[in-house]
Amino acid sequence: MARVTLLTDFGTRDGYVGAMKGVITSIVPGVPIDDIGHDVPRGDPVAAGYALARYWDRYPRATVHIVVVDPGVGTERRALALEVDGRFVVAPDNGLISRVLDAARRSRAVALTSPGYLDLSGSRTFHGRDVFAPAGAHLARGLPLSLLGPELSDPVRWSEPEVERTTDEARGEVVAVDRFGNLATNLPGETLDGASWVELDGERIPVVRTYGEVESKAPLALVNSDGRVEVAVRDGSAADVLRAGIGASVRVPIPAREE
Amino acid sequence: MARVTLLTDFGTRDGYVGAMKGVITSIVPGVPIDDIGHDVPRGDPVAAGYALARYWDRYPRATVHIVVVDPGVGTERRALALEVDGRFVVAPDNGLISRVLDAARRSRAVALTSPGYLDLSGSRTFHGRDVFAPAGAHLARGLPLSLLGPELSDPVRWSEPEVERTTDEARGEVVAVDRFGNLATNLPGETLDGASWVELDGERIPVVRTYGEVESKAPLALVNSDGRVEVAVRDGSAADVLRAGIGASVRVPIPAREE
Amino acid sequence: MARVTLLTDFGTRDGYVGAMKGVITSIVPGVPIDDIGHDVPRGDPVAAGYALARYWDRYPRATVHIVVVDPGVGTERRALALEVDGRFVVAPDNGLISRVLDAARRSRAVALTSPGYLDLSGSRTFHGRDVFAPAGAHLARGLPLSLLGPELSDPVRWSEPEVERTTDEARGEVVAVDRFGNLATNLPGETLDGASWVELDGERIPVVRTYGEVESKAPLALVNSDGRVEVAVRDGSAADVLRAGIGASVRVPIPAREE
Repeated sequence: MARVTLLTDFGTRDGYVGAMKGVITSIVPGVPIDDIGHDVPRGDPVAAGYALARYWDRYPRATVHIVVVDPGVGTERRALALEVDGRFVVAPDNGLISRVLDAARRSRAVALTSPGYLDLSGSRTFHGRDVFAPAGAHLARGLPLSLLGPELSDPVRWSEPEVERTTDEARGEVVAVDRFGNLATNLPGETLDGASWVELDGERIPVVRTYGEVESKAPLALVNSDGRVEVAVRDGSAADVLRAGIGASVRVPIPAREE
Repeated sequence: MARVTLLTDFGTRDGYVGAMKGVITSIVPGVPIDDIGHDVPRGDPVAAGYALARYWDRYPRATVHIVVVDPGVGTERRALALEVDGRFVVAPDNGLISRVLDAARRSRAVALTSPGYLDLSGSRTFHGRDVFAPAGAHLARGLPLSLLGPELSDPVRWSEPEVERTTDEARGEVVAVDRFGNLATNLPGETLDGASWVELDGERIPVVRTYGEVESKAPLALVNSDGRVEVAVRDGSAADVLRAGIGASVRVPIPAREE
Repeated sequence: MARVTLLTDFGTRDGYVGAMKGVITSIVPGVPIDDIGHDVPRGDPVAAGYALARYWDRYPRATVHIVVVDPGVGTERRALALEVDGRFVVAPDNGLISRVLDAARRSRAVALTSPGYLDLSGSRTFHGRDVFAPAGAHLARGLPLSLLGPELSDPVRWSEPEVERTTDEARGEVVAVDRFGNLATNLPGETLDGASWVELDGERIPVVRTYGEVESKAPLALVNSDGRVEVAVRDGSAADVLRAGIGASVRVPIPAREE
C-alpha cells in the first residue's frame, strides 16, 4: 500500500481536508496520509508548483501526491493524474505540474473522467473531495493509471523565464518567494562559481556559502537547497528588507577565466 | 485497529496536540492519526460542529473522531463519547455534536467518567490530553463504549434556525462562514430549483451552478458541497465584499409552477 | 518500526517539511509520522524546547522526535541525536533539549557526523532535509545511536531562572507564553498550596483550581497542565490583558503554617 500526500489551499479549520481524508481512507483503509500543507497562497498554482517540486521525488516510488490548488473549479479545466518517474501526481490541469515535468525523465498523464472511480455527479465546487481524493486513493491501492481515464497528451504547462547569458554576465529573475521572504531565482547554482557578488534590482549583494558568513539582518546570495541562486537576509526577510518580489532582476557577473 | 482524527482549537506551536498524540500512541501504538485541523476559532463549538459535519461520515466505520473545542473546561460541563452510525465521536458535551446528530440514523452516548481508562485526577485545564485522548485511544483499540461510563441520554444539542416558507418565498439565514468567506445558509440546496436569484440582506445575487459562470470578484449563489444554499464571491470573500456574516437573512423567491 | 514526530519553524506552504517527510519515508517506508507543529516562533529554540517538553515522554518508548528550529544552520553549531529514557530526540545542538534533560533520568548524545547515513555534502542551508531527517529515519528503523557519530558529552544547555524563596514568599518569573497568551512560570505547582493570590508585576491575581471559578475575561492563577504556576485570563489572553511576557516577576506569599 502506497503513501498519499496532500497539498492544498483549503486551510484546516473548516473540515474540507478532513472530508478528503475520509474519502481516501474509505477506499484504502490504513493508508498513511502525510499533510504537506494546506496554506498555499489561495488560488496560486505557480506557488503550489514550486512547493511540489521540493518534495515529489524525495518520496519513494509509488507515492501518490494529491495537490488541489484550483481557481478554475467549475470551469472547463481538466483534471489529471500523472505517473512520473514511478510516483503519481493527481491535480487540476492548470500548470502546477510544470516544474515536476521539467525535472522528470519519464511521464504519462490521463484525464480524470472515469465515472466508475470518481464522483463526477457530486458537487461542482469541491473536486478535492469528489474527484482528486478518490483518484489518488485508487492509485494508492494499485489501480492502473489508465483505468482513470484516457491519455492526456497536452497537459497545461508554463515555462520559467529564460536566463540571459553574455560573456560578461548572466541575467535571471526572482521566480518564487517563500514564507521566510527568501528570493529564489531561475539561475542555476553553478552561476555563482567564482562570483563574489550579485546585483538584485541594481543593488550589490555578497555571495556566501552559508548564512553564518554575514551579520544578522544582512543580505546575502547563495546556492539554496534546491540548487538555485537565492537572495536572502540572515534572520530576516529579503522580500521585506530589499523590497523585492517575483520578477525582480538578478545579475551575476561572470569572472574572467585564466586558461 | 481503527483510525483516529483530531480537531481542536489548540494551535500547534506549543506542543499541546503533540501531548494528545503521545497519549494516544502510548495506548494504541501504530494507530494512524489524521489531523483535521487545530485552528478552529477559539472556544467556538458551533464552528467546530459545522466542520465535524463535513467529514465524520466520509470516514470508514470504526473511525474515532476526537474534537476538543472546550470553553467550559474546568466547569461542570460533561465529557462524552458518541457511537453514531458505526463511527465514534469523543468531545466535550457542549453541543458540538448537534449537526452530527441531525444527520445520524442511530446513536448512543456515554459520559466519560471511568477512572480505569481516563486520567480524571490529572490537570483540570487539559482534558484533551487527560480525558479525550485516552477515551479515543481505547475506542480505537476496540474497547466497548459502555466501559467508558454510564449512558448519557440528554447530550447538549442546539437546533439550526428554521426555514420560513410561504407560497412566494423561502427565508433562511447564514449559519456558517468558512475561511474563504463563503456564507453557508440553513436553506437546503433544492430551494434553488428554478430560482434565478436570491436576496442577501436585500441585495440580489444571481443563482449559478458553478463559480465559472460569473466574473472574477462577482457575487453568486449556488448549492455548496454540503448540499446547502451558499452565497460566495468568485476568487474573493463574500463575507468581506458583501459585509455579511452569521445571521444575515437570505430570501429565495419560489417560481410559479405550471401544472 | 517506531513512530517519528516533527516540530519545526518551517511553515507548511513551501514544501520544506514535505521534503523531510519524503527523505524519512524513503529510508523507512510505511513509518507513521506525526506532525507536532511547524509554526514555532521563527528561530526560537527556547520556545521549541518548552513545546518539546510537553510531549516527548508522553509518546511510547522508541519514538523518534525530530525538532528543527535552527537559527545557526550553516555556522559551526553541532547537530545531535539524544537517547533519553528510551525515546530519541534529533535536533541542532542549540539548547532546545535543555528542558528534556532537566526531566530525564538517563540520556546519552552523539554528534551527527557519519557520512554513511547523513547527506553532509548536501545543502548548507537545509539540514532538516539532509541531516536531521535521515538521522531520525535511521533511528526509527532501529540503527544503533552510536553509528550516527561519536559521543557528544557536553550538549548546549540553558538553565531556567532559579526560584527565590524566603520564609514569607517565593519569587519566580514568567518563562513561556503560549499561543493563548497564558503566562507559564518557573514556579512549581505546589508553591500555590494554601495561597489565595499571587502578584504579577505587583498586581494581585486570585488563585483558583479551574478557569470556571472566575468570570469570563478575568485573570486567575492556577497549576497548569505541566504542573507549573501559570497566570491566565479566562476566555482571553493574559499576555494582552495584563501586558506581561517572559521575565515578568511573579510573587507567591507563603501562608503561616500551624503545627
